[in-house]
Amino acid sequence: MVDAVAAGGGKVVEDPGAAEAIIWLGRPTEELRSLLHGGISWLQLPSAGVENWISAGLVDGSRTVTSAVGSYGPQVAEHALALILASLRRLAACARTTTWAPATVRGSSLRDACVAIVGAGEIGRELIAMLGPLGARTIAVTRRGLPVPGADVSLSTDRLAEALRAADVVVLAAPVTPATTHLMNATTLAHLRPGTHLVNVGRGELVDTEALLAALNSGQLAGAALDVTEPEPLPDGHPLWTHPLALITPHTANPEHLRLAALARRLTENTKRFVAGEPLVAVVDPEIGY
Amino acid sequence: MVDAVAAGGGKVVEDPGAAEAIIWLGRPTEELRSLLHGGISWLQLPSAGVENWISAGLVDGSRTVTSAVGSYGPQVAEHALALILASLRRLAACARTTTWAPATVRGSSLRDACVAIVGAGEIGRELIAMLGPLGARTIAVTRRGLPVPGADVSLSTDRLAEALRAADVVVLAAPVTPATTHLMNATTLAHLRPGTHLVNVGRGELVDTEALLAALNSGQLAGAALDVTEPEPLPDGHPLWTHPLALITPHTANPEHLRLAALARRLTENTKRFVAGEPLVAVVDPEIGY
Repeated sequence: MVDAVAAGGGKVVEDPGAAEAIIWLGRPTEELRSLLHGGISWLQLPSAGVENWISAGLVDGSRTVTSAVGSYGPQVAEHALALILASLRRLAACARTTTWAPATVRGSSLRDACVAIVGAGEIGRELIAMLGPLGARTIAVTRRGLPVPGADVSLSTDRLAEALRAADVVVLAAPVTPATTHLMNATTLAHLRPGTHLVNVGRGELVDTEALLAALNSGQLAGAALDVTEPEPLPDGHPLWTHPLALITPHTANPEHLRLAALARRLTENTKRFVAGEPLVAVVDPEIGY
Repeated sequence: MVDAVAAGGGKVVEDPGAAEAIIWLGRPTEELRSLLHGGISWLQLPSAGVENWISAGLVDGSRTVTSAVGSYGPQVAEHALALILASLRRLAACARTTTWAPATVRGSSLRDACVAIVGAGEIGRELIAMLGPLGARTIAVTRRGLPVPGADVSLSTDRLAEALRAADVVVLAAPVTPATTHLMNATTLAHLRPGTHLVNVGRGELVDTEALLAALNSGQLAGAALDVTEPEPLPDGHPLWTHPLALITPHTANPEHLRLAALARRLTENTKRFVAGEPLVAVVDPEIGY
């Protein structure tokens, strides 16, 4: 991270009292609070969600605070695309076999397929951009249903059933709230056309795992590729581990080394801007909470 | 296929002796040779790679021969992207495991990665377009090194070593010719930086399989994802089937049902052009081998 600051033209000082900016890689602590003297005009935080820093009173309007919003979305969207293509192209089954049997691999394609993306925060929006050149149509499902840039159709969650009926692939990239817990359950899964694929890069709690297994066994789902599960970690012996239509990645959409690399790039960019006196990326607004 | 020809304004005749053109959906056989009388001015082949037809002496310059080059590109490019992401994100290892162990999954990302694409026909060009929103840089390596639309850098094959040294991912999408047989061998694989991934959606003969295995075992290659192999079919018991860094798909980049739909569209287009006396799509040049 020292290199990342230097690459942006910043100078790392040993005495915090002489610093004009703090780049904080840990959690919100009293130690951080003690470092925030009047000469500190910029505080860079390491996470995309900042609710804990706001509630700790560390974002009080007396200096510019920036988050990592926007730096991790591309990683997770890329993983979502990897899981979509793996499910459509039957890569889990291919990885598990030890004999050449093309007739058993009946892959399908994203071209002219309909992808419903539930949640269109930074992950969903990045994914929509990635799906464009693959020739897929996209339906973005968000709480309020406001038009999402790049999506062919934008719907509010109260029209989820409509999106599910149209989808060849459903991607979950929503936060967990009381309204989205078990969003995919026996009732909603029943809206899917037989042969649909489900990808989850949001939170395991978005899916009722028992209902998911039933949908895989009935053929309603042609595949499920999950980076998050309920329960998580998925216990040894769970039927999803060996289900021929399922692929599990153990919450590795944004692995630690990629997360730190993405943060380093953001540090370089924001240091450049800070040195040049330009507006920083991802300034936190304590009023709206991100 | 009869419908596809009719849609292009062609007339299907029962007596091959009366035909002016042959649309051949099978393999290169003596039966095909026996049908090629002097009145046949056009032969449409069903595949994109034509090395077997050339070596069988069926492309001799005495008539126009067209291949299916260009009709399968989007499908195969999509499969190449699936294999790239599967290799980077370690999906084969994930598919084979039955326990939650995120620390063992050290995935990497296409963002800011360099992808060298050997062969920039339709597959390569489609893939370059797909890689754009993923933030990858691309080097297109072609026989003559002419600028390839969308590629960051275009090099001729005599500068292959340069491309290999720069690459995080190497994708083979070239035809097999005497010049490209075993293009990836012990010497060329040695140019790769340790940790590079190799994807082959071209032909198995582009890669010396023994050298590939050695590069996987030495760590020069971090992963190999192959839709085509040498030998093909890959025999039972071959070490690539169970290599932890390898993923094999059994020549399913362009599965039968998708292939036939694309071929039908090409037949209609070329029949239209043949009837109108216009230049056909994908005329084979026996001198260069595709």
